[in-house]
Amino acid sequence: MLDFTHDPAAQSWVASAQLPGCDFTLQNLPLGVFVPEGRDPHPRGGIAIGDQVIDLARLAASGLLAEPAAAACRVAADSTLNAFMAMGKQSWRALRHGVFHLLSSQADGRTQEQMRACMLPLRQADMKMPVDVRNYTDFYTSLHHAVNVGRVMGRENPLTRNFQWLPIAYHGRASSVVLSGTGFRRPNGQSATAERAAPAFGPCRRLDFELEMGFFVGPGTQLGEPLPLAQARDRIFGMCLLNDWSARDHQFWEMDPLGPFLGKNFCTSISPWIVSMEALAPYRVAFDRPAGDPQPLPYLQDAADRESGSLDVHLEVCLQSRRHRAQNLPGDRLTATSFRHQYWTIAQMLAQHTVGGCDLRSGDLVGTGTISGPTQDQAGALVELSRGGTLAVSLPGTGETRTFLEDGDSVSIKGWCEKPGFARIGFGECRGEVLPALDFGVA
Amino acid sequence: MLDFTHDPAAQSWVASAQLPGCDFTLQNLPLGVFVPEGRDPHPRGGIAIGDQVIDLARLAASGLLAEPAAAACRVAADSTLNAFMAMGKQSWRALRHGVFHLLSSQADGRTQEQMRACMLPLRQADMKMPVDVRNYTDFYTSLHHAVNVGRVMGRENPLTRNFQWLPIAYHGRASSVVLSGTGFRRPNGQSATAERAAPAFGPCRRLDFELEMGFFVGPGTQLGEPLPLAQARDRIFGMCLLNDWSARDHQFWEMDPLGPFLGKNFCTSISPWIVSMEALAPYRVAFDRPAGDPQPLPYLQDAADRESGSLDVHLEVCLQSRRHRAQNLPGDRLTATSFRHQYWTIAQMLAQHTVGGCDLRSGDLVGTGTISGPTQDQAGALVELSRGGTLAVSLPGTGETRTFLEDGDSVSIKGWCEKPGFARIGFGECRGEVLPALDFGVA
Repeated sequence: MLDFTHDPAAQSWVASAQLPGCDFTLQNLPLGVFVPEGRDPHPRGGIAIGDQVIDLARLAASGLLAEPAAAACRVAADSTLNAFMAMGKQSWRALRHGVFHLLSSQADGRTQEQMRACMLPLRQADMKMPVDVRNYTDFYTSLHHAVNVGRVMGRENPLTRNFQWLPIAYHGRASSVVLSGTGFRRPNGQSATAERAAPAFGPCRRLDFELEMGFFVGPGTQLGEPLPLAQARDRIFGMCLLNDWSARDHQFWEMDPLGPFLGKNFCTSISPWIVSMEALAPYRVAFDRPAGDPQPLPYLQDAADRESGSLDVHLEVCLQSRRHRAQNLPGDRLTATSFRHQYWTIAQMLAQHTVGGCDLRSGDLVGTGTISGPTQDQAGALVELSRGGTLAVSLPGTGETRTFLEDGDSVSIKGWCEKPGFARIGFGECRGEVLPALDFGVA
Repeated sequence: MLDFTHDPAAQSWVASAQLPGCDFTLQNLPLGVFVPEGRDPHPRGGIAIGDQVIDLARLAASGLLAEPAAAACRVAADSTLNAFMAMGKQSWRALRHGVFHLLSSQADGRTQEQMRACMLPLRQADMKMPVDVRNYTDFYTSLHHAVNVGRVMGRENPLTRNFQWLPIAYHGRASSVVLSGTGFRRPNGQSATAERAAPAFGPCRRLDFELEMGFFVGPGTQLGEPLPLAQARDRIFGMCLLNDWSARDHQFWEMDPLGPFLGKNFCTSISPWIVSMEALAPYRVAFDRPAGDPQPLPYLQDAADRESGSLDVHLEVCLQSRRHRAQNLPGDRLTATSFRHQYWTIAQMLAQHTVGGCDLRSGDLVGTGTISGPTQDQAGALVELSRGGTLAVSLPGTGETRTFLEDGDSVSIKGWCEKPGFARIGFGECRGEVLPALDFGVA
């Protein structure tokens, strides 16, 4: 389903969109919500191009877009993208195609001038949460992550038997999903001690990041209405980067039998720009289920999903410590992998989510679970990279090491798609900094 | 902290509020949201008294209340109670006390006449969700339930070691919380089969209810701001009845390692009337932690919570099958117990919820977990009453038996407080009916 908006030869008159390594190319056009610095404080929708952002409220008022793109733009200009997500695929496409034409080097001088009046530099845009997250679900779809963590937990069979049969998930906490750039305090909590002793209470000693992607639900569903796999694809609006910060000591103590709670709900960070599934279409890839693994049950498979349900998104995590910042160093790379290694596709996740009748709302956030590739250096969390804290991970820039995160550590996730014959599609960055724990006093 | 509103001798001029067994006495005054049948379709807040409901929009306009009760009433008249919950304890009390005076038999004839103009019969009130549930958390605080279920699951130690150290919880699904009276389809899903075989897919064969209570968060908290136990008490607005319907076969297959997901998120029912903590004050009781059990860590205990943190709410569950209805029978009682047997108090639950920094929003719903008393006939779920489906539970009215729920079964939870020297405080009813599964076709 590629069209003219995927043509890598298409250029924009916005010069910065043509620079090598630019995330926000003409072929991308991700959506976010922002406040223009020092002006009208009302948040509004925006589209990123190069180092600029298009103010959709101004674009909607400009008369530059024809229907149905104009109607879509009016809704996308809202203070959250929930209503725009509810409009569905035709409206999403209309806006993306309409803006593509206006930004293309084919646009005439007068159009470019009018468009410039709707734009401001990205550095003047104060980014806000793009969505009012009503529900947040986190999946667990990397086999490599599941095996790595199962080993750390000392499980006899590191992979649970259900893993290959269904995309495992749990409900996360919607209230504590925050935008990239938000710092959070190291959480206090209980952790296990020797058998029969009282648990310890205090600041987390095994604070971790989790490299994930998130996706957003478009049109919602009714309670009792399962979404077949083939329809699930079209209900997904787009994707972002996600860091599901984890307090491993608290998590491992509390999670038997009902799963993670405080170990995960103190903060979850997302990147501000949402890349549409249409922009990602050139990077769809087949999922190669390892030979000998069971085939999914019928409701979790079809030819289209098998042939192009995965996505080849390159992902990297960098850690910048206080010492890095003191020395003006950018931070060291901890891991790099691709989203294509996940064992279940995002359409399978949504089909599974609704198969029992659970309803979805527009703007619901779904995490993919930690993304770990097949090798040790491709793992998506410190608990795996440090093998449960037994192996020091080097930060060559400063000569420091880490087993888990320290106060002042800033973790940055970046992601992008790139291959010969296609334009680069980038996600920008998801960053968060660990602030010292609150002195709890009482315990 | 008892005052004149707890005086059992106080009577209302609303005659039905004095009838024996009336849930909605003058001392109760629970809040809900409703639409007056056949009139203005806009939902608005209401207070139940006897067999009547006070339309708070009309009361706010009547001029009958003085400030600050009038201001509280204007906010409580909204289409959800979230904003009223955010106002805090002083406003909640002002409205309850103000309405108490207006409904008391001390009120003069003209006041009674004006109040009558603000009221309608409960049977003409179409009840709506009282709250926009932004986040739903479910605890697991009955030791008896935990032991019963651990045994059914074949655990060597039925009680996990963390149980006595912290109130265990998991995040539930907010979108699928529905009002009492809403039917739901039996969910489809995967369940375990013999080792090495593919899991089965189809309608749930072990559909269960869970007898719970719910409580609502008043003023919210900021991310990173723990709520000390002593403050947690005043942040709780009130309580309702809750049924956390569960698909045991799906749940037990999926829940290792991340907890319940589809086994719980197809439907959660709540009763329409929220009873304030102030109305419940006479029924506060001490929690008797069994001798020899570990004392809670300092952040989870204080004298006030120990002495009066539990609540003596009598709870019953009835099942009305299709056959009961065909024979005009009211249904048979499955179980009866009290909320006082829970191992953790609701203030402890809220203190635990926020200790790591997780933020709360006004109107967040918190479930207490299944409420099972110490004896087998006090268990709060069929999986316990039938010992994992091995023991048939009798329905004497029709001569039927149950191990799990069948299509057409309607389950009703009722709850009330009653003791000599105090007025009865009732919760009304939380009811739901099992509709047949959707024919899934594909699998």
